[in-house]
Amino acid sequence: MTTDTAPAKPAKRASAISPTRSEDYAEWYQQVIKEADLAENSPVRGCMVIRPWGYGLWENIQHVLDRMFKDTGHQNAYFPLFIPLSFFEKEAEHVEGFAKECAVVTHRRLEAKPGGGLMPAAELEEPLIVRPTSETIIGASFAKWIRSYRDLPVLINQWANVVRWEMRTRLFLRTSEFLWQEGHTAHATAEEAHAETMRMLDIYEHFAHEYMAIPVIKGEKCSWERFPGAVNTYSIEAMMQDRRALQAGTSHFLGQNFARASGIRFQTKEGGEELAWTTSWGVSTRLIGALIMAHSDDDGLVLPPRLAPRHVVILPIYRNDTDRERVLQYCRRLSEELRGQPFGDGRIEVETDDRDIRGGEKAWYHVKRGVPLRVEVGPRDLDAGVVSVSRRDRPAGERRAVPHAEFVAGVVGVLSEMQRGLYERALAFRSANTREIADRDEFQAWYGAPDEGREAHGGFALSPFADDPAVADALAPLKVTVRCLPLAQTPRPARCLFTGRPTDRWAIFAKAY
Amino acid sequence: MTTDTAPAKPAKRASAISPTRSEDYAEWYQQVIKEADLAENSPVRGCMVIRPWGYGLWENIQHVLDRMFKDTGHQNAYFPLFIPLSFFEKEAEHVEGFAKECAVVTHRRLEAKPGGGLMPAAELEEPLIVRPTSETIIGASFAKWIRSYRDLPVLINQWANVVRWEMRTRLFLRTSEFLWQEGHTAHATAEEAHAETMRMLDIYEHFAHEYMAIPVIKGEKCSWERFPGAVNTYSIEAMMQDRRALQAGTSHFLGQNFARASGIRFQTKEGGEELAWTTSWGVSTRLIGALIMAHSDDDGLVLPPRLAPRHVVILPIYRNDTDRERVLQYCRRLSEELRGQPFGDGRIEVETDDRDIRGGEKAWYHVKRGVPLRVEVGPRDLDAGVVSVSRRDRPAGERRAVPHAEFVAGVVGVLSEMQRGLYERALAFRSANTREIADRDEFQAWYGAPDEGREAHGGFALSPFADDPAVADALAPLKVTVRCLPLAQTPRPARCLFTGRPTDRWAIFAKAY
Repeated sequence: MTTDTAPAKPAKRASAISPTRSEDYAEWYQQVIKEADLAENSPVRGCMVIRPWGYGLWENIQHVLDRMFKDTGHQNAYFPLFIPLSFFEKEAEHVEGFAKECAVVTHRRLEAKPGGGLMPAAELEEPLIVRPTSETIIGASFAKWIRSYRDLPVLINQWANVVRWEMRTRLFLRTSEFLWQEGHTAHATAEEAHAETMRMLDIYEHFAHEYMAIPVIKGEKCSWERFPGAVNTYSIEAMMQDRRALQAGTSHFLGQNFARASGIRFQTKEGGEELAWTTSWGVSTRLIGALIMAHSDDDGLVLPPRLAPRHVVILPIYRNDTDRERVLQYCRRLSEELRGQPFGDGRIEVETDDRDIRGGEKAWYHVKRGVPLRVEVGPRDLDAGVVSVSRRDRPAGERRAVPHAEFVAGVVGVLSEMQRGLYERALAFRSANTREIADRDEFQAWYGAPDEGREAHGGFALSPFADDPAVADALAPLKVTVRCLPLAQTPRPARCLFTGRPTDRWAIFAKAY
Repeated sequence: MTTDTAPAKPAKRASAISPTRSEDYAEWYQQVIKEADLAENSPVRGCMVIRPWGYGLWENIQHVLDRMFKDTGHQNAYFPLFIPLSFFEKEAEHVEGFAKECAVVTHRRLEAKPGGGLMPAAELEEPLIVRPTSETIIGASFAKWIRSYRDLPVLINQWANVVRWEMRTRLFLRTSEFLWQEGHTAHATAEEAHAETMRMLDIYEHFAHEYMAIPVIKGEKCSWERFPGAVNTYSIEAMMQDRRALQAGTSHFLGQNFARASGIRFQTKEGGEELAWTTSWGVSTRLIGALIMAHSDDDGLVLPPRLAPRHVVILPIYRNDTDRERVLQYCRRLSEELRGQPFGDGRIEVETDDRDIRGGEKAWYHVKRGVPLRVEVGPRDLDAGVVSVSRRDRPAGERRAVPHAEFVAGVVGVLSEMQRGLYERALAFRSANTREIADRDEFQAWYGAPDEGREAHGGFALSPFADDPAVADALAPLKVTVRCLPLAQTPRPARCLFTGRPTDRWAIFAKAY
């Protein structure tokens, strides 16, 4: 242990997140984001500013997913931000689903207003919708590109911003503008398109487990939770620390609905003409909200090491210029030794923070930003050949003196262990807060009343389910929704808790974001 | 030389670009884009679809520039797509400059129209401008982030889409929506901000020379060509094969104009309060237009190898199943040997094209897409231990038999030589089409009439220049513009050709895109 100089043990009370999770989970979430400099509200209603630390996370998410998409044969392309109203109207369910939240461009210039200021001028002949999703505009290109079965499959992905006007917004979770990727593919047969839908769902699951360290349940959405215009929608559902569900990604089998709307036809091997079968699938900056809520604690952000923009921060400690020179030189060497090492999909990223601020304040700065490892180096550590290591997955005040060489040789192992630990903790939490419930009273108690010391609701329920809108009506007063019908289930005959209808499929129910 | 099988020598007449450059340069440009599958017009007026081959180019451009920005201390972030009208109005020259080309969002939903169809509904209290550039919205964040000199400099970059409504559009060169990066920085002193402006201009120059293989002239824009609201604007200017200029990147010293508009103030070391000094700088998908027009020929796209999405395409040739197996196995081995090799900022990218189409057609497909090296492999090549190599910078029918090992060992060298060759050719072309002109009649003849067999205009003129709007008026009938005042010049007293005023600064004049 170092016994050095600056007050390196963070002064708990002053600097942790206020309120705590148990005091006010929603406000805790906002404060974690604020204290970690991840994002902030902008002057534009419902639109956020993603700050460099938050954007660095998004870049890492992009980097990993982009590689997975390319490894499975997809290519990136870019399609217009605007969709003519007439295109959007082509698929009836689709337009119905998005009409209430469309930003509409109606003019193409500004003119002086009598009395000062400016006003919109030069009205467009046809209003343009700012894309909420791009099935219809990409469909127009597919219709041009695809002539014959030889042109199929077409496997496209787009990284883009989209706009869905939201009245109540929350950073990352629900914003009017958000960043996402949207995959769009066209195939010759229903089977191929369905296989693609499932393949991309598998990729999302893999990404959630291996990179986000979040266990997810893969399943099919019930009829009223489907993407507008889809035949089937599948999702991955995660549990947050307040036991609510968060839909972290979706993959849609669109059948021939959008092919019909856009005229995506192809000549078959036999010389006939058929409509193509299409899919779409996407994840968004919402994943960052999921990360925050799945792992962070009352000290601030906790990041899974495989997605952290920085893995190690080195904190030099010294009192005078002589020490300063020695310590900084040592830090440079340490940094070089760490930086080269491969980890995850890239390399260990190291920062040395030599700003002239109090040691405690500095340590808290990095705790709250979720940097996985903090390494303090003072003159005595140097003499003893050790470094003082603090792990973000342990209490903020805990430090361990580790011999220099051991730390350097073991750093990838420690980060991997932390990654695994986060996943296991999240999985254990979900297991502890999921219950199989085949009885309506028990279901009601699980959500409607305090249960075994838990506040407000119990978490996930796995219950028999019949796909009938009456279920949605019965759930509404409880503010509970059907999350998905897990793919990993064997038929077990039972009765739907809400309609009494016999069924052999079970669904995950939860309060949700 | 192979004497194999499929008609591997491309049938010139049938497949080259029509028209040629000399027949109709503008139409040739469109056809090169079409035949290379780079992009296409979309159903949305003025917006383009960037197809995978074009987007792959953009990804490579992004990858290289992003690294350069990060290496110079910049961080990426993301700001809203929409700018409230009132923000936009804060800087008078700025809004004046962009008012005529703004897409304006006025409504936030769609409603059923009496008689069928949909119409915009729920009018916004304040119209939102789709960002044409983000100085004002980013300024609002900077004003929040910056409190003290300790917070400076702030060095931010954003990769984003922007919209500037254009009535006459051309793929990549001028589109209503385009993709770009916009750097935005804030500094404590004018000197630092100016140094940043020049540093980024240098990065753009370096990128143009080393990656795009395009020589550029770094210079300052004259007063009427400045970015609206800037104190100084600098650009890099390139010459296309029709001798017109293309502005390929700009860097702006914004003084305190935007800091004043957005309230970006900081406490100085001495305890006073000052406005920050800001810069902005950007390049866009226009660079792809520059690439096409600088290097391509009458056979189609020519790509500088360091930015090509694929460096080598292997074309297997066989007549029967026995040959097929041997040839494909050999191609796989060759591909593996090439693929691992580092080149430019990444590795050699290889594709094997085993589609069942005619050999000539297949070769032309890759010629027109600008793949730097085509390698044909047939059974006799295999037996002889050679591959048949065609370089995109040589005539389409030219092939050379190269021993397998020599080709694998030399591929990086060949690509580097091709990269250098493209630059040198472009530089020689520019030199041959640039003239120092200090006489108005000569200037007029250079632009106004056929000159030495060249059509329409001579290219760049370097002429004495006084910064007076009368110059713009005099140039208008010639359709010539002031491109920039080159930074690399020593004062040479002369008289401005158009105002007769004495000056010691010279400018580059040209017809321009």
